[in-house]
Amino acid sequence: MVQCTSLGSDCELLASEICRFIRRKVGGRRAVLGLSGGIDSAVTAKLAVKALGSERVLALIMPDLASTPLEDVTDARTLADEIGIGYRVIDITGVAKSLVDLVSGTDVRRDKVAEGNTRARLRMTIMYYIANSENRIVIGSGDRSELLIGYFTKYGDGGVDLLPLGCLYKTQVRELARWIGIPQRIVEKESSPRLWPGQTAEGELGLSYEEIDRILFELIDLKKGVKEAIRDLGEEYAEKVTRVAWMIRRSAHKRRTPPVPIIKR
Amino acid sequence: MVQCTSLGSDCELLASEICRFIRRKVGGRRAVLGLSGGIDSAVTAKLAVKALGSERVLALIMPDLASTPLEDVTDARTLADEIGIGYRVIDITGVAKSLVDLVSGTDVRRDKVAEGNTRARLRMTIMYYIANSENRIVIGSGDRSELLIGYFTKYGDGGVDLLPLGCLYKTQVRELARWIGIPQRIVEKESSPRLWPGQTAEGELGLSYEEIDRILFELIDLKKGVKEAIRDLGEEYAEKVTRVAWMIRRSAHKRRTPPVPIIKR
Repeated sequence: MVQCTSLGSDCELLASEICRFIRRKVGGRRAVLGLSGGIDSAVTAKLAVKALGSERVLALIMPDLASTPLEDVTDARTLADEIGIGYRVIDITGVAKSLVDLVSGTDVRRDKVAEGNTRARLRMTIMYYIANSENRIVIGSGDRSELLIGYFTKYGDGGVDLLPLGCLYKTQVRELARWIGIPQRIVEKESSPRLWPGQTAEGELGLSYEEIDRILFELIDLKKGVKEAIRDLGEEYAEKVTRVAWMIRRSAHKRRTPPVPIIKR
Repeated sequence: MVQCTSLGSDCELLASEICRFIRRKVGGRRAVLGLSGGIDSAVTAKLAVKALGSERVLALIMPDLASTPLEDVTDARTLADEIGIGYRVIDITGVAKSLVDLVSGTDVRRDKVAEGNTRARLRMTIMYYIANSENRIVIGSGDRSELLIGYFTKYGDGGVDLLPLGCLYKTQVRELARWIGIPQRIVEKESSPRLWPGQTAEGELGLSYEEIDRILFELIDLKKGVKEAIRDLGEEYAEKVTRVAWMIRRSAHKRRTPPVPIIKR
């Protein structure tokens, strides 16, 4: 089988291509990015600094104490110090609660997913407030696996100006992370959007990223149909391939701009 | 010269095509939309009700008393009653102020545009909270003129699931509004995103929508270059055409999903 995720000796080339992309998109401006304490934002921050210089990158650490483990805040701070970028900590706990209370007050039942997405959207709103005020570009940290299966909040963490890691599967981000020297603690942390307490990506998705990426490689890169992918991966993958294909389809709306009627005149 | 904006007798056909689009995109679900007291959201609401029935459409009226004129709230309520849809009023004044204070507290200078965009993004966040909780689709009300010149907040009022009026220039929306019986008061109100007190679209843009639409028609529908459009519209349009062409170019990033590096392997 084709090795889909091994970057092998390409890490150097890949890092430099991603840096070139960041430089081209940011142009002469400055950038702002969120730092969560997780692997994607750590890699993004490190590459952004490499591309733009630390004085042009601002990191925002935006915990919500109802859902962010304190160790994430510590990890994010430590990383920012280590890669030498300035950061601001903006605690969104109060404003997130106010917003949910405001909306729940109008007779909407409380909803874990809705509240989690609200946190992601508030973070986007804060990033753009600072971007607008200081003429900065918002750099996102979503990876290719998350984009393809739609594992991100529409107009939340998905609401950014560029996605430097959008070309890499999660397992590839892990390889690159090790190569560029992201602390092991962050590389090995269980992946989670941290939108509610105890949430983990693989728990919620029901598959490991190794499995997801292997399947995505078959369906997307090799353009195989579901049946063909199952035949090549083995019958034990049947349910998983079907599931990933469904996630791709169901999230298509998140990967395009809002549709508009086509009127024949 | 070609009449770009006259819908003539096509209003009926157009309304029914837009309704079909809404029905197809919403499917078996329900919808939520924002009602501002302005013309675009009024037309959108009326067509949504026509397409889905009033029991499947919820309107949200989300004033910020720091920027929303009270008459807009009255107009929105009156319209909702008139077209027979349920609505909730969610006053965002407090939460918008808390959010701006939170971010400004971190040494960012206050910024009128950034604050205005924050209001639009908070409204989006609220709409999706309710959409997530109640399995609704978010219907936006941006029109084609606003989309093309980028006169909307990225991930704010631009952050929606579908844009039924995205195929109509503002001047065409006005024609359609009259035809479907939107109150004259709303049709003739001066266009404004109401993101700060006293903001008007035409004041901020420096052109009337009649001018903008005439120019967009030349540049977009007739695919003319700037020079050609000036030649055909007349030399007195020179500065205006250049300005609109610049607005289109400068806002291109708002009309696509975030770019991702293209890595040759």
